[in-house]
Amino acid sequence: MDIIKGGVTAAKGFLAGGVHCGAKRKNKDLAIVHTKTPANMAATFTTNIVKAAPVLWNKKIFDDGSTVKAIVVNSGNANACTGKIGMTHANEMASKTGEVLGIDEEEVLVASTGVIGVKLPIDKICNGIVDLSDKLGDNEQSADDAANAIRTTDTYSKQIAVTVMIDGKKVTIGGMAKGSGMIHPNMATMLSFITTDINISKTLLRKALSDSIKDSYNMISVDGDTSTNDMVILLANGEAGNEEITQVDEDYKIFKEALDYINIYLAKLIVSDGEGVTKFIEVSVKGAKNKEDARLLSKSVITSNLVKTAFFGEDANWGRILCAMGYSSAEFDPSKVSLHYVSNKGKITLVENGLPIDFDEDYASSIISERDIIVEIELDEGNGEAKAWGCDLSYEYVKINGEYRT
Amino acid sequence: MDIIKGGVTAAKGFLAGGVHCGAKRKNKDLAIVHTKTPANMAATFTTNIVKAAPVLWNKKIFDDGSTVKAIVVNSGNANACTGKIGMTHANEMASKTGEVLGIDEEEVLVASTGVIGVKLPIDKICNGIVDLSDKLGDNEQSADDAANAIRTTDTYSKQIAVTVMIDGKKVTIGGMAKGSGMIHPNMATMLSFITTDINISKTLLRKALSDSIKDSYNMISVDGDTSTNDMVILLANGEAGNEEITQVDEDYKIFKEALDYINIYLAKLIVSDGEGVTKFIEVSVKGAKNKEDARLLSKSVITSNLVKTAFFGEDANWGRILCAMGYSSAEFDPSKVSLHYVSNKGKITLVENGLPIDFDEDYASSIISERDIIVEIELDEGNGEAKAWGCDLSYEYVKINGEYRT
Repeated sequence: MDIIKGGVTAAKGFLAGGVHCGAKRKNKDLAIVHTKTPANMAATFTTNIVKAAPVLWNKKIFDDGSTVKAIVVNSGNANACTGKIGMTHANEMASKTGEVLGIDEEEVLVASTGVIGVKLPIDKICNGIVDLSDKLGDNEQSADDAANAIRTTDTYSKQIAVTVMIDGKKVTIGGMAKGSGMIHPNMATMLSFITTDINISKTLLRKALSDSIKDSYNMISVDGDTSTNDMVILLANGEAGNEEITQVDEDYKIFKEALDYINIYLAKLIVSDGEGVTKFIEVSVKGAKNKEDARLLSKSVITSNLVKTAFFGEDANWGRILCAMGYSSAEFDPSKVSLHYVSNKGKITLVENGLPIDFDEDYASSIISERDIIVEIELDEGNGEAKAWGCDLSYEYVKINGEYRT
Repeated sequence: MDIIKGGVTAAKGFLAGGVHCGAKRKNKDLAIVHTKTPANMAATFTTNIVKAAPVLWNKKIFDDGSTVKAIVVNSGNANACTGKIGMTHANEMASKTGEVLGIDEEEVLVASTGVIGVKLPIDKICNGIVDLSDKLGDNEQSADDAANAIRTTDTYSKQIAVTVMIDGKKVTIGGMAKGSGMIHPNMATMLSFITTDINISKTLLRKALSDSIKDSYNMISVDGDTSTNDMVILLANGEAGNEEITQVDEDYKIFKEALDYINIYLAKLIVSDGEGVTKFIEVSVKGAKNKEDARLLSKSVITSNLVKTAFFGEDANWGRILCAMGYSSAEFDPSKVSLHYVSNKGKITLVENGLPIDFDEDYASSIISERDIIVEIELDEGNGEAKAWGCDLSYEYVKINGEYRT
């Protein structure tokens, strides 16, 4: 597997671009991704009952199972809690994009991120779509423009692309994502768009994404809130020319591994660029009863406010970690737990077989004074392994999210 | 129902007291509650898999269904994650208390709160138990001493007592609780001890407590973490002399209502005295499909970090509230939601039938500038109602819980 540049335009046949249309006061705020060859679509949408209009639009296309030729995304306004007019606006975004690209509106997916409860500035967005249609390209700059246009409070754009050899053909997968940005008066939204030229059946494409998400986006936590607008979309246009993958074979596994790499890379970037983050924390669980328990345990630890504030305070507070494991709903015997902290400064064991070890406080402090910290947890229940990624809870998080009074 | 003084000593036949034994550096840290007449016991323990030694000790007594004559509680050390020696120490606390009070060790419940992963200073505690055995009383001062001795970082002691007439007899219920205090290097623990002289079958006593907890302690959230030591214990010694309550009749309902009053009162005090709290928030849900959905919705809103930081920032951020409702797992139609903020300064409607209302920002700001705020949510799904109580998420919370670096 080779890591390359080019983000969403790296795979054959994909164009992209980004412009400023006025949904945000400044900076790019409108992106389009386009493939002339129709692409199979895989996707995961927010589980929140309160779904933004573009989520509802895309779900219908997803459920119909039809192919897709474009994604149009605006930042600055989430088009959520906007009622019937919101649905009309999502439709207008698809319809205008279809018009300028010469494709059907049902071939266009829509995403929005930003303020909720406020009507989309639909005229500005439609003008932007016309403007942008002339600027789509398949080069790095086009991918950069698109990746920048989907940012809200992200401090940098998030992109990655890789190539793998499948069936003697070079297959490329590229992606861009935006993280938990908070736009007054609002909420975090995670958007991720992946493009690939692999030739694969729709069923397996969907299986690959759905399995991959469990170990990537679903294993990160910034603040535990699930947005109304979250979505991950994967488009595969088949232009790599490999023989269509129709079963879980070696070729599928190579693809899945590359897709995991992309999704985990983007998921980790989202956390690392989380609001007010001063620590990036990986929680690695081994020896859980099964994979699902390992996921529950690592996710529970990374989501705990008490664990997060302890890391902010650089406090080797293993008690809070055991506590968070205890309410994860996974089964385990606390008397068989071992726990270590690892960073560039070294590794220290804090708990062995459920009991605290006398450790060197200064050494522990030096280890957790690093920005990147790994919490290694070992159980003795089975072979379940999982990793979750999160961040600390800082003054800055409270400040960004309580901006009025601060 | 009359509200009276006296906390856990208000009910007939209950003695209490508190002393300093040295588990904390200063202030009272050891409490005993004692009834000569054996009491039926109801209890709820933490659902955390990692259970502190005293929780395990009490669970056995609870499961055996035997009667109880005392509770001994220390603060300063949670006796959690302490392995076999922890179990021995919990047993020693019960055994020493039994010895000085002339009762069996199996008649003594044990509770601990404070630092975890550190051995109990058992000698100091046993000496304290001997010391305290001479100081038990049935007056207000004794109850105050006990309520103070179970505090960790609570800024004030939490007590209440009420009387009701049942079967022509005066029945008294009193309680004390401690809230989410954090003791280096550790975690929040909620303890609540209720004493009553009512004569009621063990089955109904347990039903009353278990139902009451669902609408009180289970409806508060300071930070979403469930401690290893949490417990609520209710002792009923029957000394009021009413005919034994053996079915869900009018007398049971009078008792249940008084018990709810006590539990909700203590639960609200715990939140109000939460770490770093600058706002006390009640979330009231009406018109949910059923009671359980109403609980899920109100609890989800009060637990959201984004909602909590918004209140800290005095930001009328209704979008985060709808979002938290959306991932609560309760079913509802977002287009039928109405939402209001209420405080001493007035009431303002922010959302009606799922759509934002143009509201006066200055008026909204003045309403949420108060310390006590009610969020009223109306659905149109059924008759389910519930209230949950929580607090904001402030710099101070982060500071208290990340004390090392701050």
